[in-house]
Amino acid sequence: MSVPERARAGAGARLGVDVGGTSVRAALVDPTGVLVSPLVDAPRSPDLISQLSSIYHDLTDSQSVVVAGAGLAVPGSVDPATGRIGSVPTAPALQGLDPADIRLGPGLPIRVCNDANAATIGEWTHGAAVGARHVVGLFAGTGVGCGVVIDGVLLTGSRGLAAEAGHLVVDPDGPPCPCGGQGCLEQFASGTAVARWYGEATGRSVPGAAEVARAARGGDPTARQAFERAARLLGVAAAGLANLFNPEVIVLGGGMAAAWDLLEADLTRAVARHTMPLTARGLRLAPGRLGRAAGVVGAAASAPAD
Amino acid sequence: MSVPERARAGAGARLGVDVGGTSVRAALVDPTGVLVSPLVDAPRSPDLISQLSSIYHDLTDSQSVVVAGAGLAVPGSVDPATGRIGSVPTAPALQGLDPADIRLGPGLPIRVCNDANAATIGEWTHGAAVGARHVVGLFAGTGVGCGVVIDGVLLTGSRGLAAEAGHLVVDPDGPPCPCGGQGCLEQFASGTAVARWYGEATGRSVPGAAEVARAARGGDPTARQAFERAARLLGVAAAGLANLFNPEVIVLGGGMAAAWDLLEADLTRAVARHTMPLTARGLRLAPGRLGRAAGVVGAAASAPAD
Repeated sequence: MSVPERARAGAGARLGVDVGGTSVRAALVDPTGVLVSPLVDAPRSPDLISQLSSIYHDLTDSQSVVVAGAGLAVPGSVDPATGRIGSVPTAPALQGLDPADIRLGPGLPIRVCNDANAATIGEWTHGAAVGARHVVGLFAGTGVGCGVVIDGVLLTGSRGLAAEAGHLVVDPDGPPCPCGGQGCLEQFASGTAVARWYGEATGRSVPGAAEVARAARGGDPTARQAFERAARLLGVAAAGLANLFNPEVIVLGGGMAAAWDLLEADLTRAVARHTMPLTARGLRLAPGRLGRAAGVVGAAASAPAD
Repeated sequence: MSVPERARAGAGARLGVDVGGTSVRAALVDPTGVLVSPLVDAPRSPDLISQLSSIYHDLTDSQSVVVAGAGLAVPGSVDPATGRIGSVPTAPALQGLDPADIRLGPGLPIRVCNDANAATIGEWTHGAAVGARHVVGLFAGTGVGCGVVIDGVLLTGSRGLAAEAGHLVVDPDGPPCPCGGQGCLEQFASGTAVARWYGEATGRSVPGAAEVARAARGGDPTARQAFERAARLLGVAAAGLANLFNPEVIVLGGGMAAAWDLLEADLTRAVARHTMPLTARGLRLAPGRLGRAAGVVGAAASAPAD
């Protein structure tokens, strides 16, 4: 069955939107988690709501598909009691919005969620953690985001600010973090941190962790070291999350998951060293399966049901 | 109203038992969390079940009170699906037991829970966290235990092994921990660790953190330093827990809470430094109110209802 056929067949497709710090991703997703449109991946425009509305119309005009609702993942918090958007540092225009006031298409109901939570829901419902009821998603890219599913329910915390594992302290005397803290995991294990560390160690300017990964695969020992260091501290944090949440599976997603081949050995070793033995038994550590579509798929899965 | 009067009045009192590594605590507790018997605090006998049965009979024979059920807190895990006891390293005889097979008194229904979880439930239902729906309990004594309440539900994890914050890694290169890990919070911030660190720094042998606290209050700078160090790392861990769970309140209980006067300033400072600003806003940090009765009160609150 071709994609357009599937789209026509799939009544109840939903729009999934993943608003990042600088980009917007979106697609129509059917209830089985399959993308029934191309994955839009565009730089964010200053008028975000207009941009999202255009994306919605482009996607629906080009596909004869009924869209039941939209899920919108944002890099910020959502009040678990009201569903309203809380703080979104990189998109202040969204702050305080009620989903009912965001109109992307006529009568299209919208639910908003945090981006790392959406990616976790994506991997849980249709990716690397299908079938589990206790899941930790760790997404390392520009920063390090995290989502936690506990007995089939997403952890939001009292005001929607959970679960910021990127700001677990892995070195109390470490470098300052834009969050206001110090020595946060994100400062060591994000793609940004890997590129920065490699740049400082070599004096070379690298645009991102993908370039460092290429160098590492080409045998550059400093590049390998950059990934070893990130993997070890991701593992220390993952072990802490395992000891706290006793999950069945920890999924590592985000841009850094593309370097799973470079991370796996040191990550696995650190998790084994720092996870309590009973907790380690039966714990699975897996790379994300949905890649950069995880947030879109999870946002769609969180959209209001038909 | 005197205690015996209250006991007679309080139909539906429950037995709370808190089995520690070396001691057993127990009391009859009414539904409002008030102890309606003396708090038994005895060294653990090798035949634990007989000891608990004797305690039950002593408590009920001396009080004319109807006991509706018993809650038994154990230093180990409980399978969340079946209620059976999992691993209890310091009391292997309990391992695998079904609560229905533990007979303390005729027809007395029993529920078993983890000891740190029980203490958290105690502080939540009748102590420092009354009224909150998102609570982290951190109990530092012989070790460091932790319990988490999320939107009014206790976190157990997939196999009842949550939430081992005592084994959060605060120094990946730190000393080995009996859990098999390395650099765990417990190795720095338990009462045991405070006494050990002080002993090593001074060459004096001290039986426990209470003696170090006395020395600190008497002006001993090394003793003060021992508490500063513990407070700082407790604060780093508490900040991590705040960033992960976005709770309304973090309660510090256990033996170390008796040194709240020595811990508060450094603990508060470390929490403020390492907690994300939005999460820190509205976060309360409080010493436990129930002291060594927290586990007993929480176990009783978890007992099968009348």
